Amino acid sequence: MSKLIRFGVSLEDELLVPFDRLLKVKGYENRSEAIRALIREYLVKRQWVEGRETAGAITLVYDHHRRELVRKLTDIQHDFHHMIISTQHIHLDHDNCLEIIAVRGKPRDVEELSDRLKAVKGIKHGTLSLSSTGKEMV
Amino acid sequence: MSKLIRFGVSLEDELLVPFDRLLKVKGYENRSEAIRALIREYLVKRQWVEGRETAGAITLVYDHHRRELVRKLTDIQHDFHHMIISTQHIHLDHDNCLEIIAVRGKPRDVEELSDRLKAVKGIKHGTLSLSSTGKEMV
Amino acid sequence: MSKLIRFGVSLEDELLVPFDRLLKVKGYENRSEAIRALIREYLVKRQWVEGRETAGAITLVYDHHRRELVRKLTDIQHDFHHMIISTQHIHLDHDNCLEIIAVRGKPRDVEELSDRLKAVKGIKHGTLSLSSTGKEMV
Amino acid sequence: MSKLIRFGVSLEDELLVPFDRLLKVKGYENRSEAIRALIREYLVKRQWVEGRETAGAITLVYDHHRRELVRKLTDIQHDFHHMIISTQHIHLDHDNCLEIIAVRGKPRDVEELSDRLKAVKGIKHGTLSLSSTGKEMV
Repeated sequence: MSKLIRFGVSLEDELLVPFDRLLKVKGYENRSEAIRALIREYLVKRQWVEGRETAGAITLVYDHHRRELVRKLTDIQHDFHHMIISTQHIHLDHDNCLEIIAVRGKPRDVEELSDRLKAVKGIKHGTLSLSSTGKEMV
Repeated sequence: MSKLIRFGVSLEDELLVPFDRLLKVKGYENRSEAIRALIREYLVKRQWVEGRETAGAITLVYDHHRRELVRKLTDIQHDFHHMIISTQHIHLDHDNCLEIIAVRGKPRDVEELSDRLKAVKGIKHGTLSLSSTGKEMV
Repeated sequence: MSKLIRFGVSLEDELLVPFDRLLKVKGYENRSEAIRALIREYLVKRQWVEGRETAGAITLVYDHHRRELVRKLTDIQHDFHHMIISTQHIHLDHDNCLEIIAVRGKPRDVEELSDRLKAVKGIKHGTLSLSSTGKEMV
Repeated sequence: MSKLIRFGVSLEDELLVPFDRLLKVKGYENRSEAIRALIREYLVKRQWVEGRETAGAITLVYDHHRRELVRKLTDIQHDFHHMIISTQHIHLDHDNCLEIIAVRGKPRDVEELSDRLKAVKGIKHGTLSLSSTGKEMV
């Protein structure tokens, strides 16, 4: 079980006033919530630098009519099957589809998988977003 | 139907040698493929700046035991249902889950949805990756 | 004069322990200092989105033997002289120099200047970093 | 001496038309220039990943009335003097100044210096932009 710890923070009013304004815009309930989010963001970036296990998503946009492309994507995904959790396939229009691959692994390995997929001929665009497995974080 | 256009590019050997080395590492078939990928990346970024319709993915990591959180996420998703294509839910371990939401809309609106979801109390981490609808891009 | 305001923040120990560890690595004196830095970073990003005046630096790496290039850089800098505060010129080695241009203006305009400079034939690399004029921030 | 190599690239017209439009907006002379810039950007990012020597700029915004701060910045800069090439100091207004430090070294070390400077109490904002020493790049 996690334990809630309360501590005091000192901030200049010139910093606090725009911060309060911004966190209302972004939808945070209170200062603790917004500060918690900033700290998490900061810790997650650190986890990548340290090479610790991460979870994330790879997105690929492509024309599904290209059979050869689909075959290659499948081949690569099989080579990296231990890192792929599941795949979501969306038909954007008659030609284009968006494939979102949920992944888990060391940042380096996830980047390699992402590079390999993005390099397949016919891929229109690809992104990789690294998040966290949620472990060691409340 | 798209038409293939061939044109000449002049590059210094000192630039071309490391480029050839790198594209082999990344898995590109040839220079045209790698240059095509760089150009697409460049055009996609421009589409966001211009505020044109985009597709992408929002990832959220959270502890699914927090009932209130799950209810709020659902409420927000309903408010933005016209922008949400589908959702993928992954159980990372006993406590943590990774939710990946496929979205489509103007960059500004997608960012607002992402902000709202990330601000919900109990979200451990969230990311937004913008890609493209694939339209106007080969 | 700015006024220091003290308020309480509640954080789970599982979040606070790695945060304390990280802020020691980064050299922050205490939690307030580190949280202040995170909040500033957050506010500065917002200032860009809102298009408020910013200050920053453009870096350019090039071979100074290319006379035509130097003339063009000077021409562009004169066109944007109202945004350029000062320039620092560094000889990296016999051929290469690093020019750092301190700029001030709306994010959009600063980006346009940066684009124009980076597009000059012979520029090897360019970066733009946006910071803040320090106004409305303690 | 670098040697210019000419080779053919094949691109779909649907990709080439928006690319031609964008490179005019950005001020590139021709396709080769724009492609050269994209390739350089790509190679420079790779140099950081590989940990090769880089050059860049650290920006700091602070209130120069804080004597203790100025002393600490000087101390840190002396500790890292082998990496600091020169410093540019700009008075933004009565209170705020922008200091731009030209640096050179391994990405890891430059980041450590940047972290240390940004953590000094009283720093309002800091950025680090990594570029290149220009070596092994035309």
